[in-house]
Amino acid sequence: MTKDLRHRLRIGVIGGSQAKEAALRDAAQVGRLIAGRGGILVCGGLGGVMESASRGAKEAGGLTLGILPGNALREANSSIDIPVATGLGYTRNSLVALNADVLIAVDGEYGTLSEIAFGLIYGRRVIGLGTWAIPGVIPARGPEEAVSLAFRED
Amino acid sequence: MTKDLRHRLRIGVIGGSQAKEAALRDAAQVGRLIAGRGGILVCGGLGGVMESASRGAKEAGGLTLGILPGNALREANSSIDIPVATGLGYTRNSLVALNADVLIAVDGEYGTLSEIAFGLIYGRRVIGLGTWAIPGVIPARGPEEAVSLAFRED
Amino acid sequence: MTKDLRHRLRIGVIGGSQAKEAALRDAAQVGRLIAGRGGILVCGGLGGVMESASRGAKEAGGLTLGILPGNALREANSSIDIPVATGLGYTRNSLVALNADVLIAVDGEYGTLSEIAFGLIYGRRVIGLGTWAIPGVIPARGPEEAVSLAFRED
Amino acid sequence: MTKDLRHRLRIGVIGGSQAKEAALRDAAQVGRLIAGRGGILVCGGLGGVMESASRGAKEAGGLTLGILPGNALREANSSIDIPVATGLGYTRNSLVALNADVLIAVDGEYGTLSEIAFGLIYGRRVIGLGTWAIPGVIPARGPEEAVSLAFRED
Repeated sequence: MTKDLRHRLRIGVIGGSQAKEAALRDAAQVGRLIAGRGGILVCGGLGGVMESASRGAKEAGGLTLGILPGNALREANSSIDIPVATGLGYTRNSLVALNADVLIAVDGEYGTLSEIAFGLIYGRRVIGLGTWAIPGVIPARGPEEAVSLAFRED
Repeated sequence: MTKDLRHRLRIGVIGGSQAKEAALRDAAQVGRLIAGRGGILVCGGLGGVMESASRGAKEAGGLTLGILPGNALREANSSIDIPVATGLGYTRNSLVALNADVLIAVDGEYGTLSEIAFGLIYGRRVIGLGTWAIPGVIPARGPEEAVSLAFRED
Repeated sequence: MTKDLRHRLRIGVIGGSQAKEAALRDAAQVGRLIAGRGGILVCGGLGGVMESASRGAKEAGGLTLGILPGNALREANSSIDIPVATGLGYTRNSLVALNADVLIAVDGEYGTLSEIAFGLIYGRRVIGLGTWAIPGVIPARGPEEAVSLAFRED
Repeated sequence: MTKDLRHRLRIGVIGGSQAKEAALRDAAQVGRLIAGRGGILVCGGLGGVMESASRGAKEAGGLTLGILPGNALREANSSIDIPVATGLGYTRNSLVALNADVLIAVDGEYGTLSEIAFGLIYGRRVIGLGTWAIPGVIPARGPEEAVSLAFRED
């Protein structure tokens, strides 16, 4: 199975560690759809949108990579398969963007804004779902459209 | 002179390494006014807005600190007194925000957006001069107002 | 299979990107033994000792995680399953140590010395195979003993 | 005065945040001699050897730059003129080495060892005063010799 890990698309799901129910539901559905299409889910590894997306991906049999702000692998939510400790604090937001081929932003506050900015700096496509309206971010109307755009099925 | 360096306000001036003439003029004036009020100018140490602001600060006898993306101190523009090499690439944008008490954004692209985001994450006041309209950024009408707001003379 | 990824021991194999034949053979054998015991191999993701250890681990059906210095996932050697780009340059050596439960140093120059130091700073057990003789590093006489010590089978 | 800051040699003084009296005395003397010769003292900004060296440098009218592990400038010892917050934790050790033209290691534990390693990785001359005996480190018999070697007055 691991043979093809390098060829699978990596989708970063970015969003706040706290979010309303609707955003959490969207994130879970985004995670499920990513896994269903064979993508690897990359996120910041903590709670809220990150946790919902990770749980969705695991429900659909996917693989999840969590780039953590702290030093301890155990701070990753329980749906992260591969936690990566950075010890960089918020500065790790740059590495979340760097490690995704394409990003889907769901809701989110300033942390998400920094990850959107880094995604655009690194030339990644950034798809937005009820998030910051920044020129360059491609708005999607729902999880299905967001994941379709991520896999360029549009 | 160095006795009081720890007590001087640090103003981060953020903006692109390429900018139009008007933005560069604004940046230079911002730099002059910061130095005139005894602030330390913090920036990313490279060209464009960073260089204009640094030159302005030096013209007014100020001190400038440049947090560089690369490994080499010599990449700092010639108006930087204290270059700090990070070797972190764009990830250093987080450190620019972290090392300022307050930030003034002048014009700018995605790099500036990431610095605005980090400024807001770290709880800094962020003042905007013809830059991204992000909730939380305090808009100023010109260099004088921007620097007044930075020093809370409003 | 991914269900238990969080419970598998992570063994960091550190060593130079250039090494003599004997060290490369040792590294490959260390990789094979780690994978054979169900450990995840963590390394810096590049050539030399890192590549030999990764190839050994893949030959034995293991999983490999490579913490890269640069921005591009493709710089990882072809035996890395999960490359992680950091863009931190040599500073990423700290993250290699942080992401391993225990470290095995094989041969190595100053880069390896920095990783040994970080391993000891972070309280990891560090096992040495023909490497720097630093107090705190547990010397092993061969790959078998090194991996046994890593899994605390001693 | 700041005009020539870019041309002054930067000497990194590295050593533990806890040290015995003799090492602290050596560090203070090293700091004094660096400042006396017009060098800028660079260090990790905290206590122990870092603080003694900084205090020595300030006693002799020098300038001190402290590259901090945490997010808060106030964690710098009171003899640091220019604190730089990194938020990188121990990973900042790499940046201490990077920001010095030459390094003097006084005593020290594993943190110092990591800084010695980075100094050698970055091609800096590293002078040792009662510290790790690593090939490439130039041993000095006392503060005077260490600082003379740093300024290449040997």
